[in-house]
Amino acid sequence: MDQEFASTLLENTVAQLASLPGIGRKTALRLALHILRQDEPAAIALGQSIIDLRTGVRYCSECHNISENPVCPVCSNPGRDQSTICVVENVKDVMSIENTRQYNGLYHVLGGVISPMDGIGPDQLQIASLVERVRNRNISEVILALSATMEGETTDFYIYRQLGTYPVKITQLARGVSVGNEIEYTDEVTLGRSLLNRTLFADSFHK
Amino acid sequence: MDQEFASTLLENTVAQLASLPGIGRKTALRLALHILRQDEPAAIALGQSIIDLRTGVRYCSECHNISENPVCPVCSNPGRDQSTICVVENVKDVMSIENTRQYNGLYHVLGGVISPMDGIGPDQLQIASLVERVRNRNISEVILALSATMEGETTDFYIYRQLGTYPVKITQLARGVSVGNEIEYTDEVTLGRSLLNRTLFADSFHK
Repeated sequence: MDQEFASTLLENTVAQLASLPGIGRKTALRLALHILRQDEPAAIALGQSIIDLRTGVRYCSECHNISENPVCPVCSNPGRDQSTICVVENVKDVMSIENTRQYNGLYHVLGGVISPMDGIGPDQLQIASLVERVRNRNISEVILALSATMEGETTDFYIYRQLGTYPVKITQLARGVSVGNEIEYTDEVTLGRSLLNRTLFADSFHK
Repeated sequence: MDQEFASTLLENTVAQLASLPGIGRKTALRLALHILRQDEPAAIALGQSIIDLRTGVRYCSECHNISENPVCPVCSNPGRDQSTICVVENVKDVMSIENTRQYNGLYHVLGGVISPMDGIGPDQLQIASLVERVRNRNISEVILALSATMEGETTDFYIYRQLGTYPVKITQLARGVSVGNEIEYTDEVTLGRSLLNRTLFADSFHK
């Protein structure tokens, strides 16, 4: 778009907003004009919250999840199973798993998955600190909860090999037909895995 | 969504972003996590640009468009036709009309249209200052370029009556079939107006 803005302030804000994922120049302009129509305190609160988020946020020294304290509420909660670690890609995945209310152990946030295409190797991820936790704490199970993609499974396998020498059970999220999905529209690889890993029908009543 | 955030900073930013139009909680969370992954200077630049926009922006004292100077570059440009005013709803409409490169006159940004449903009456819009400009300057034509909606046409009519006593030509954007549209999918009101206001075919070559 070759729009000429009457103000460099507007131009700058539009450029900044358009740098966010999923927000194009048109949406950015619409947002900027909305901000202009807002009360001044509201606009300042929005801008300041972004600055505060980036400059003020801290991460748990144990699991690397976002935390206001040195150790996050999950890691420091004696009511949670301290012998199980669920390995996830990012902060959002922790929220998703917490929302299932099916898990009472700890987490470990990798910060991504191994992806040579994006230049992300094992060293850029929190894998060494995971090995550290398994070595020093009394961990009995590590649950791999990474995406069921090529990159996710590569990372699963890398972690599996790194942890091979420790007496820890390594499990992976079940692959299978998504709840609500029809068999007809389930891909063959998933269908094959769901057949191989079929479960006793009676067990589904207890879950 | 009943997501529990590990950080009030994150929660606050998500709430702030979700208050923007067209951005829900899910998108807001995705944006906030993106901001967390950014370099600190980039995140600060984004937040600061929003604050600067709202606190620093100024409006042209003549046409009420966004401007860095007391009088905007359009109003102060001697190369533009100072006797024609195009009345628009907002700043974005000025950009849209400028982008057509078909207009060389001045603008007048109303700041909206009369909408009793939203509690917007003539007094909240820059109509009095438009009448002032027509009275004091040598204005020969006022082009009404408001939306072709009930509210837009109500505002057109209100302005038409306010300017009735001045020797100024008042015109309106042509209503007709949108370029690229099929007759079959053009509504009857538009089609009727386009028939009434049909133009000489030969004229289209010169435009």
